[in-house]
Amino acid sequence: MYPDYTPIAYSELHKSLADSNQDPLPLPKVVEYLAAAPARVVLVDNTSSQDVADTYPQFLSKGISIVTPNKKAFSGSYKLWQDIFSAASSSGAKVYHESSVGAGLPVISTLKDLVDTGDSITKIEGVFSGTMSFLFNSFAPTDGLGGKWSAEVAKAKELGYTEPDPRDDLNGLDVARKLTILARLAGLPVESPASFPVQSLIPKELESVASGDEFLERLPGFDSQMEDTKTSAEKEGKVIRFVGSIDVAKKEVKVGLEKFDRSHPIAALKGSDNIISFYTKRYGSNPLIIQGAGAGGEVTAMGVTADLIKVLERLT
Amino acid sequence: MYPDYTPIAYSELHKSLADSNQDPLPLPKVVEYLAAAPARVVLVDNTSSQDVADTYPQFLSKGISIVTPNKKAFSGSYKLWQDIFSAASSSGAKVYHESSVGAGLPVISTLKDLVDTGDSITKIEGVFSGTMSFLFNSFAPTDGLGGKWSAEVAKAKELGYTEPDPRDDLNGLDVARKLTILARLAGLPVESPASFPVQSLIPKELESVASGDEFLERLPGFDSQMEDTKTSAEKEGKVIRFVGSIDVAKKEVKVGLEKFDRSHPIAALKGSDNIISFYTKRYGSNPLIIQGAGAGGEVTAMGVTADLIKVLERLT
Repeated sequence: MYPDYTPIAYSELHKSLADSNQDPLPLPKVVEYLAAAPARVVLVDNTSSQDVADTYPQFLSKGISIVTPNKKAFSGSYKLWQDIFSAASSSGAKVYHESSVGAGLPVISTLKDLVDTGDSITKIEGVFSGTMSFLFNSFAPTDGLGGKWSAEVAKAKELGYTEPDPRDDLNGLDVARKLTILARLAGLPVESPASFPVQSLIPKELESVASGDEFLERLPGFDSQMEDTKTSAEKEGKVIRFVGSIDVAKKEVKVGLEKFDRSHPIAALKGSDNIISFYTKRYGSNPLIIQGAGAGGEVTAMGVTADLIKVLERLT
Repeated sequence: MYPDYTPIAYSELHKSLADSNQDPLPLPKVVEYLAAAPARVVLVDNTSSQDVADTYPQFLSKGISIVTPNKKAFSGSYKLWQDIFSAASSSGAKVYHESSVGAGLPVISTLKDLVDTGDSITKIEGVFSGTMSFLFNSFAPTDGLGGKWSAEVAKAKELGYTEPDPRDDLNGLDVARKLTILARLAGLPVESPASFPVQSLIPKELESVASGDEFLERLPGFDSQMEDTKTSAEKEGKVIRFVGSIDVAKKEVKVGLEKFDRSHPIAALKGSDNIISFYTKRYGSNPLIIQGAGAGGEVTAMGVTADLIKVLERLT
């Protein structure tokens, strides 16, 4: 019988999926299927698929709410962003994406509360990547010497802190996507993550080598570049960190290496923690700061689940 | 005509109040009046009145939602706490009180999200008073010497950082109230702010002097007590701070002076900032940290307004 809306018990989920011989529905059919459901629907998109993200406006216009950590929807073209929120606004469907920046940390919700209550955001600054945080805390620690850059990258990969190809972290695009989302929420109509300066930490010569493994093999040949940057910061008593910043008044968004005093909260981060500082008119010269693990399965699941609870409260 | 539910335009509010010759209704009449209103009602309680707080269960049981920064309701007797939340749960009315701890900082909402999504809170620790933060950042700074204790208290009063009688800050009760609220949300059935150790910074001899002014005049005679505590911490390379902590496993709540390394985030606070660290099972050894101005009219108004927006979204 099709369409079938019989509930599946949580304990049966995996078995039911394994036993099914039905092909996955193409996305337009998924929209149709959910839109015709006999109850209100929340779609939880735990993919990082651009195709699914591109379909959000269709889901939302049918009244289907969305909860997701998928960054692609909110950091793609500015037109997709506008289509998503205008579809949600027309139909009354909700779209919550706390985990698209900083996983379970209350980053998006705090920024929304600031904006919704009439504060003016002047600057947002921070370390938005657990991978970059770990790498620089090891490579340029506030105490001690730190290891060679290529060795730290290899170690981070072994520990599972990087993508399978570490270049997917080192190109800065993950941070650029998060900055795009925050800048838009703060009121800047940023066109895309490619429309502002993003420093890549991949040596030009290694951009097009075939595999992540070959990249790691050849990276030691370029250690002197990062070593020079580190040493020059040390001469000023500083350490380097990979940060993103949004200057709302100047409409400037940028991602890259910057120098910080050793006592600066951004320098003092531990492990793979993120830190996000919101400078606003109301909070004056001392920012509102949120800090903690900004990646990982459990904390991302927390962000998604907390969003789902909020959407359910707003739907009933 | 009474009861009158004619809306009052925002621009007319003050004039309308000034022109009214009606006595304020006694609280039971306010409950009746709001319960009979021809629309859904949210009561925003911006008092710090225990009487109003004691009436919350009656408002809530009539379906009237509450938004408030009033700490008294949530840090009074454990029975009042239970009555409030069981009344809300029976009627479906909402009760939001973000600003009862840390003003507009997302402290309560973050703790609720952690608990609601199944995390286990192991410890909560922090500086929960803007007054205490300012006093100790001036008295025992991480750089330099700091002033005399009594002089810093007098300065804090002049700058408007303390209550009219500074003893109302120095007795630690304000922090104890906030700890009571957080401990209860974390699952500990704390009986009252008097049921755990709270260190008062008021010298015994000055507890019962008649006025705040007399207290300030005589305080210099007791400077050596605080000076000794400060010096003894300095000998270990540390600074003292006035903190609160909740150890959930041990069911221990306490408020008082503790020593911290100069590089510790609690030592490094600026101005009158608060810092709250949540240690949880999911976040592991590095806590989720929230930091920023935790008092002041504008940021408190932000917390109340953001709560009001959330309640309105859930009611419609």
